[in-house]
Amino acid sequence: MFDPVEKLKEFVRHPSISADPSAKEGMKGAREFVAGLLTSIGFSTEIVPTALHPIILAHRGGKPEWPHVIIYGHYDVQPADPLNLWQTPPFEPQIRGHRIYGRGTADNKGPLMTHIAAVARLLERRPDLPLRITFMIEGEEETGSPSFLPFIEKHKDRLQADFVYLSDTGIPRPDQVVITCGLRGLTLFDVVVTGSKMDLHSGLHGGVLRNPIQALAELCASLHTPDGRVNVPGFYDDVLEVEPWERAELAKLGQSEEQYREFLGIPAFHAHKGYTPFEATRFLPTLEFNGIGGGYQGEGTKTVIPSKAFVKISCRLVPNQNPEKIRDLLYKTIRERMPKDVTFELVDQHQGIPYVVVPPDRSNTPKDQSPVLARAFRAADASITEVFGKQPLYLREGGSVPIIADIKRVLGLDSVLFGLFLPEDNLHAPNESFDLNVMEKGIRASEKILESVAKG
Amino acid sequence: MFDPVEKLKEFVRHPSISADPSAKEGMKGAREFVAGLLTSIGFSTEIVPTALHPIILAHRGGKPEWPHVIIYGHYDVQPADPLNLWQTPPFEPQIRGHRIYGRGTADNKGPLMTHIAAVARLLERRPDLPLRITFMIEGEEETGSPSFLPFIEKHKDRLQADFVYLSDTGIPRPDQVVITCGLRGLTLFDVVVTGSKMDLHSGLHGGVLRNPIQALAELCASLHTPDGRVNVPGFYDDVLEVEPWERAELAKLGQSEEQYREFLGIPAFHAHKGYTPFEATRFLPTLEFNGIGGGYQGEGTKTVIPSKAFVKISCRLVPNQNPEKIRDLLYKTIRERMPKDVTFELVDQHQGIPYVVVPPDRSNTPKDQSPVLARAFRAADASITEVFGKQPLYLREGGSVPIIADIKRVLGLDSVLFGLFLPEDNLHAPNESFDLNVMEKGIRASEKILESVAKG
Repeated sequence: MFDPVEKLKEFVRHPSISADPSAKEGMKGAREFVAGLLTSIGFSTEIVPTALHPIILAHRGGKPEWPHVIIYGHYDVQPADPLNLWQTPPFEPQIRGHRIYGRGTADNKGPLMTHIAAVARLLERRPDLPLRITFMIEGEEETGSPSFLPFIEKHKDRLQADFVYLSDTGIPRPDQVVITCGLRGLTLFDVVVTGSKMDLHSGLHGGVLRNPIQALAELCASLHTPDGRVNVPGFYDDVLEVEPWERAELAKLGQSEEQYREFLGIPAFHAHKGYTPFEATRFLPTLEFNGIGGGYQGEGTKTVIPSKAFVKISCRLVPNQNPEKIRDLLYKTIRERMPKDVTFELVDQHQGIPYVVVPPDRSNTPKDQSPVLARAFRAADASITEVFGKQPLYLREGGSVPIIADIKRVLGLDSVLFGLFLPEDNLHAPNESFDLNVMEKGIRASEKILESVAKG
Repeated sequence: MFDPVEKLKEFVRHPSISADPSAKEGMKGAREFVAGLLTSIGFSTEIVPTALHPIILAHRGGKPEWPHVIIYGHYDVQPADPLNLWQTPPFEPQIRGHRIYGRGTADNKGPLMTHIAAVARLLERRPDLPLRITFMIEGEEETGSPSFLPFIEKHKDRLQADFVYLSDTGIPRPDQVVITCGLRGLTLFDVVVTGSKMDLHSGLHGGVLRNPIQALAELCASLHTPDGRVNVPGFYDDVLEVEPWERAELAKLGQSEEQYREFLGIPAFHAHKGYTPFEATRFLPTLEFNGIGGGYQGEGTKTVIPSKAFVKISCRLVPNQNPEKIRDLLYKTIRERMPKDVTFELVDQHQGIPYVVVPPDRSNTPKDQSPVLARAFRAADASITEVFGKQPLYLREGGSVPIIADIKRVLGLDSVLFGLFLPEDNLHAPNESFDLNVMEKGIRASEKILESVAKG
């Protein structure tokens, strides 16, 4: 009998910190542990090299007419420091109450183990299950998945499937599962403004030239309207109108604006007119200043006119905005607005496309939605409702998981994102843990979901 | 016979770096050297303690009806690093061609020695000269003169005089002396804006609040008009209109706008309408951003909405602006304009009042100008014209020398600022030097000036 908690403990004991070059042993240990586990439940398993950390591909074949699901996960974890804040060592998993503590328990070893356990139980019970399954488990998620896109591009032929299934998103309460149906995209760049070629004495030269901080402030101030919209012509042109069902679904979360305001510690919200704060983060694109710098930033004063100043800008994008198009619009606007008495440079950082998937039977469900995907969504709804006692919510999230959009773009596959971790799980922080009750329910629900998908 | 060059060499050999706590010996050496020198030429000399570096007061008394001039100077110098860029050691003075090299040769030991030599020669020739002279030589000029204001406040009674005379300003060419007739004042403060109480993930929370960088940019962008004026109601109310003679005097400098633009390396000037760049730095107040900071400033990207952002603001002020009044106007404007969905703090730094003195016989010469001051100006004009072969120019400068305004405010005395150092003297930089031809002419002119003042 497959014991998911014991297996999870073993998995967590490998310190697979992808960001730490000295953690090679831990990476290898975690990778070989999962690969061995998948082999032991009947998968033909391959460790595929990439430029950095290999990706595990484990396949259960079958007849071509059987549905094919790719289960995604990652075997790498965040660094564990500051170590002194952990109650028990991060790589010595401990169970306290109904929780298992350790680095990676919630992100992503526990949720991944949930689906491995579900598959193990299901195949033990139904060895003849008419379902092709591929586990695709990467080792660079915590460092931005640099090898992932080249990997799926290279192995496109082997990754033909009906949909992708994963748990690497959150839920608000143990009884309220969320199926994430959208993620924002990104475009990021820096603006570097130069005034004089060297820093100047503000007494000797102050009053003859435009300070680059002033030029930058004027530019930045022009990029929003007073009512909170991004003030760049064409910015909203491709934004998909949100459907009433999406607003209704979000309203079921029952969040309090006042509590959210207090959590943020701000005097008042400043959101796009016509959207609640909860809607604004999920349904609308943004333009944010992530950092600004220039001139003297120390204690006291230095009466300098700096030569340079810069700002780091990021836009969160929603369907169907295109990151390159938005970046080009912004560049055009900045070139038009920047005062002509300074020079400037635009430094491209990176892009990520937004993602949205619509469950079946909604006002905006695509007419050509894959029947297997629709079946997976219906199975998830029914199974989660049965096991967790409450229907899941279908929500877009404000964050970005670029691999989901990459999978859609390169492989043409949508994802069913079954949320499993809780706010109190302390992801990326000391004393990370995972709720074993949620895990057990997750296994039961996942087993049912996969069985229903197979039924065909 | 007093040999000013040998005396200057000896003065320079004392490494009197006021900013360097380990340079106490050098400070003491320089101080005692000058005090001894002044004693040797007949002055009654006192080293007056202050909170940090003592001030030398050396007095030549006389009948109460004799005019009384205070000659200001400073015996401290800038640090000498980077030492490897010096061709000869900074505290081992060397003469190459008509220049003497060493830290402090131009700032301020050479110019100070010029006046000591002038006084020595004059008193040798005319031991009965009807002129009271006080040397007031401080040791903290290069660290902002923190002890100077308390000193003149405390010793106000001993510092009753007709005017102050000094050389601690520059000239554009060896044959063109400038008498500085105005200095800008200062008011400096920081604006610190806070949005959320902690840094936020721009995906999860982007779109619901005003980013403090945005609030700061909006504020900063509002502080100037497109035509280069400071956009703060009342800012220009007290600005003294510049007189036609001042513009004419400045025009005689014959500076090239194109050369200045190339020196700065800017595509175009951005000065207050109706003023040349050279006028703008001297006759107009400014508001500059000396530094700005907030959020992520490293390589690459971090998609954060920062909790805080700040800007460091300084205003250069002209007569008759009052630094406290201007600061209060700015604070009022900032409080009115700052968006209400962020919080902010205004952090006062420091203030310095502007200074202006009008030579005699000008359209705006005060009717009650002291006859001794007027005589000093006329003597300076005639003596400099005779010795340097060209009439001096009477110009305001863009920089700030707060002690000059403090002397005016506390002691009621105007200053005759006889410029002596050249752009190529490398003040505050490696290979500082002083032009010995300028020094010798300066001694001759200064001797004549002081003799004329004494004539009465």
